[in-house]
Amino acid sequence: MKLYSYFRSSAAYRVRIALNLKGLDYEYAPVHLLRDGGQQLKPEYRELNPDGIVPTLIDGDNVLNQSLAIIEYLEETHPEPPLLPRAPVDRAFVRSIALQVACEIHPLDNLRVLKYLKHQVKTPDDVKDAWYAHWVEAGFESLEKRLAPDRRVGALCFGDTPTVADLCLVPQVFNARRFKIDMSRFPTIERIADHAGQIDAFQRAAPAQQPDAE
Amino acid sequence: MKLYSYFRSSAAYRVRIALNLKGLDYEYAPVHLLRDGGQQLKPEYRELNPDGIVPTLIDGDNVLNQSLAIIEYLEETHPEPPLLPRAPVDRAFVRSIALQVACEIHPLDNLRVLKYLKHQVKTPDDVKDAWYAHWVEAGFESLEKRLAPDRRVGALCFGDTPTVADLCLVPQVFNARRFKIDMSRFPTIERIADHAGQIDAFQRAAPAQQPDAE
Repeated sequence: MKLYSYFRSSAAYRVRIALNLKGLDYEYAPVHLLRDGGQQLKPEYRELNPDGIVPTLIDGDNVLNQSLAIIEYLEETHPEPPLLPRAPVDRAFVRSIALQVACEIHPLDNLRVLKYLKHQVKTPDDVKDAWYAHWVEAGFESLEKRLAPDRRVGALCFGDTPTVADLCLVPQVFNARRFKIDMSRFPTIERIADHAGQIDAFQRAAPAQQPDAE
Repeated sequence: MKLYSYFRSSAAYRVRIALNLKGLDYEYAPVHLLRDGGQQLKPEYRELNPDGIVPTLIDGDNVLNQSLAIIEYLEETHPEPPLLPRAPVDRAFVRSIALQVACEIHPLDNLRVLKYLKHQVKTPDDVKDAWYAHWVEAGFESLEKRLAPDRRVGALCFGDTPTVADLCLVPQVFNARRFKIDMSRFPTIERIADHAGQIDAFQRAAPAQQPDAE
């Protein structure tokens, strides 16, 4: 397998954790999101990923886009260890946590949106910073409200073994910390992210450990 | 089952199509996103959905958030007719189309984001309209590039029977048309959406057919 990735991309980070947890070897193909006006926008890369975003996973002849679709594919083709629980209602809980990050926070706070705000909307830096903080804090606030009282939550989002919920949460927390968001307001999220950070598969997927880290 | 919905919400629209395709009866609980400062933000509703967004599906004791997690739950608990193909690589293709809409277009162009742009960022109306058009056109452009040459595409996104890809695409096209986006630039998407619009389960899920339609 070959993963087109950028060390800081949250979406690529999710897939790196999944590949590590499942013990799958892969070739790392760096795509620099800032260099050369954005290598993800080059025609060669857009042949593989028309959106011009990372990650893309190549598995033999299969070209796979969208991190959560890639992770479900890995789950179906390499079921062990599972990244989703067994009962449909629990799978829905885990998927909804993952999607809350992937649909309500990350799309609003990623690089291309912040760039559009700056260059097209001409948003002043302080208003852009407030935009970033607003969406991540609103998202974490509601995630915290869902996770804190739920008896399914353990050391991680669902019990003590990693699920796709943790794969989405950890990169988003990494990103929030980089932007100096005060995580102490979200104690359950912070505790889960810190616990996951001790797990080898998560550690090896961290941005600083990637070949293209700066 | 009980579905908290708003007639114009794309995310609720996706779940309505899924429920109809699977032949599941449900009670319709309207949540008006504009009235009373937004009924989705009231504490009673936020007990069910801390994000304060629609839809929420109640199935017995289960409270389910996030449209794509709800649809996967319906797929697992009521497998017929299937809304995903059988082969993992095809399931990844279908899910990636759904996620391209759900993660790259819809989160940027929904009501709460447009409201935040207007009131907090103080974006002038023409810049806000350009923002809307930018994300839906960029998203449809890359979707068109993926769908047009793919031999798996038939009358619908995957062959001739509805999948979760169509469930996401059709509401996004409805939304784009409401905002006067020229769909003739995206002929494959337009053809698929028009074909799906002939199917009874899609017709009954359309905004104009809902009890809270205006």
